[in-house]
Amino acid sequence: MTTDIIRVPPATMKDQFERVLLSLGFPHDKADTLARIFMENSLDGVYTHGVNRFPDFVDYVRKGHVRIDGEPECVHAAGGEERRDGNLGPGVLNALRCAQRAVVLAQTHGMGCVASANTNHWMRAGTYGWRVAKSGYVYIGWTNTIANMPPWGAKEPRLGNNPLVIAVPFQGEAIVLDMAMSQYSIGALKQKKMRNELLPVPGGFDDDGKMSVDPGAILESQRVLPIGYWKGAGLSLMLDILATVLSGGLSVARISMQDAETRLSQVFIAISLDHFGNGAIGEKVVDDIVAYYHDAKPDGQHGPVLYPGERVLRVRRENQSGIPVMASVWNQVLALV
Amino acid sequence: MTTDIIRVPPATMKDQFERVLLSLGFPHDKADTLARIFMENSLDGVYTHGVNRFPDFVDYVRKGHVRIDGEPECVHAAGGEERRDGNLGPGVLNALRCAQRAVVLAQTHGMGCVASANTNHWMRAGTYGWRVAKSGYVYIGWTNTIANMPPWGAKEPRLGNNPLVIAVPFQGEAIVLDMAMSQYSIGALKQKKMRNELLPVPGGFDDDGKMSVDPGAILESQRVLPIGYWKGAGLSLMLDILATVLSGGLSVARISMQDAETRLSQVFIAISLDHFGNGAIGEKVVDDIVAYYHDAKPDGQHGPVLYPGERVLRVRRENQSGIPVMASVWNQVLALV
Repeated sequence: MTTDIIRVPPATMKDQFERVLLSLGFPHDKADTLARIFMENSLDGVYTHGVNRFPDFVDYVRKGHVRIDGEPECVHAAGGEERRDGNLGPGVLNALRCAQRAVVLAQTHGMGCVASANTNHWMRAGTYGWRVAKSGYVYIGWTNTIANMPPWGAKEPRLGNNPLVIAVPFQGEAIVLDMAMSQYSIGALKQKKMRNELLPVPGGFDDDGKMSVDPGAILESQRVLPIGYWKGAGLSLMLDILATVLSGGLSVARISMQDAETRLSQVFIAISLDHFGNGAIGEKVVDDIVAYYHDAKPDGQHGPVLYPGERVLRVRRENQSGIPVMASVWNQVLALV
Repeated sequence: MTTDIIRVPPATMKDQFERVLLSLGFPHDKADTLARIFMENSLDGVYTHGVNRFPDFVDYVRKGHVRIDGEPECVHAAGGEERRDGNLGPGVLNALRCAQRAVVLAQTHGMGCVASANTNHWMRAGTYGWRVAKSGYVYIGWTNTIANMPPWGAKEPRLGNNPLVIAVPFQGEAIVLDMAMSQYSIGALKQKKMRNELLPVPGGFDDDGKMSVDPGAILESQRVLPIGYWKGAGLSLMLDILATVLSGGLSVARISMQDAETRLSQVFIAISLDHFGNGAIGEKVVDDIVAYYHDAKPDGQHGPVLYPGERVLRVRRENQSGIPVMASVWNQVLALV
C-alpha cells in the first residue's frame, strides 16, 4: 500500500464528498452539511474522523445502518430537557441538530440538555463543541460506543472509550477538550503500528499482562489502557450510565450485542453564561487563566504547553492551502459512486 | 511518631468533633452537621478528608479563613441557574446547601446548576454526590483548588487537581465516581512515603524529569502526574475555567496568589430523571450495565472489578463497629479545645 501524501484543497474535498452523498440519495441540504463536516474534520487534522473515515460512512449508509431520512425526533420534553430518538439518521446531522437544540433550550432555561437514543457515530466528538462554543455557549457532550476497553482489573472489553467534550468560548473561537477515555484511540494505535513507531507513554497491556508501548501488542490483546487506569475506567462507566439513562437508549453493553456499532446514545448540554450574569466578565477571566497556564516553565521534554484545541487552530490554518491525505485514501474517495 | 491504629466508634467520633466545634463558637445545628460529615467521611474510609483533616479545619477557623457565620448567598438567579457567594463559610456547609439547592432547581427545571464563589474546601468531594444520588437525582459537581499539578509539558504547578464527582442513584444507594485530576493526591503520596512503599503506577516525575513510582521523589519535585498525561491536564483546565466563569469567583491562578487555600469556586449540578421521562426505567438499566461490567474476565493482576464507590460501601459496613484512626491523630482531636 502506498503511503504517499497528497494535498487536496478544502473546497475540492467537500465537493467530492457532496458528489458521493448526492449519488447515495441524500437531499441537497443534508449532503451539503455532511460534506462540510467531513471536510472540516479533516481540515482540523482529525483525519481519522474525516476523509479517512468517509468510505466507511458510505458503507454504513449502503448497509442500512445509517438511514438517510432518519431525523432526531422529540419523544419527551420538560423544562430544559429533551429526549430524542435519532431514528438511525446520520450521526453527524443528528448531533448537529441536538447540539443546536440544547443551545435553544439554554436560551430559555439557562441550561439545555438533549439526550439522544438510536443515533449513529458522530465522527469527531469535538465538532459540536467547536460550534456551540463559537456561538457563545459552554458545551458539554459525550457519546457511548461499542465496548473497546476493559474495566480496571479485567482483560475483556466491557467499556466504551466514550469521548467527552467540554468547550468554552475563547477569543472568537473556543477552547475545546475532545477526549476519549482510552489513552489512545484504536485509530492512533493502528497508525503507530503502520509506521513502526512505539507509543510515547504506555497505551495498554500485551498478551502477557505487561504494560506496553508497542501498538501492535496492544491491538493484539485488545487491552487498551484507560486514562489514569482505574479513574478513566470509572469515568467511562459513568458516562455510559448517564447517556443510557437520560436518553432511554442502548448502553455500551447492548450496543456491543449488535452486528455493527449503531444505535448509540449521546448527551448534549449547553450552558448560557448570561443566565449566570457573567457574560461580560467571562472572556477576560479565561484570558487570565490561559495566560497563567501558558506561563508555566517548560519541562523541555514534552513540547510546548498548549491549551486543549490550541494545536487544532494551527493545523486548520496550515491545511487551508491543502488537506494532507494518503493518495490511496483519496483515490478510494474519487472512485466512490 | 507512633502509627498505632485504634478504632473509635462513629458516635464517639462525631461527639468529639461536635464538642470542639461548639467550643469554637459554631451554633448547635451547624456543629451537628459538620461533625456528622467529618465522621461520615472517616466512616467511608476517606480519612484524609475526615478525622485526619479535622485539626487543620479547626486551624482554618481559628485563623479566620473559614468564617463560622458565612452562608452561601444568592447573587444571581435565572432559570435553573444560581450564582452564590459563599462568604467564606465552612466549605462543607456551603456545599451541602448548594447541592440541595441544585436539587430543588432540578425539580422545577429538570436540571439545576448552582455555582459558588468564595467558598472553602469541601473536604471529600464525593460527600455531595452520595447524598444527591441517594435522594434520586443525578449529580455532577467539581471544585477548583490551589495549583498543585503542572500542565503537560511544564514543570511548575499551574493546575489544580480539581476533583470531579459524578453520581447516579443505584440500589437504594449510589454509584459515585470521586476523582481528582492527579493520579495520586498529595495525601496519598505522603502516606505511601511514610510507609516506605512504592506506587503501583507512575505518579509523577522526579527532579531529573524521569517518570517515577517513588512518592518521596515526586513530593520533592512537585511534578505530580495528571491522569492520562495531557488528557487529565486538559480536563483540569476546563473544570477550572467552568467553575470560575460560572461562579464569577477565583480561578486556580488567583487562588494560588493567596496565603491560604481559600475562596474556592465550585459547581453543583443536579439532574431530574423524571424530566427525561425515564425515572421508572433508570434503575433496571443501571443494573444491566453493572452486571455486564462486573462479568468481565478478571486479569488476575489488579484486584476485583468494582464500580466507582463499591469499595466505599464495604468500608462503611466494616467501620460501623469502629473507625480506624492513628492514635496520635485521635489524641490530637481529644486535646482540641
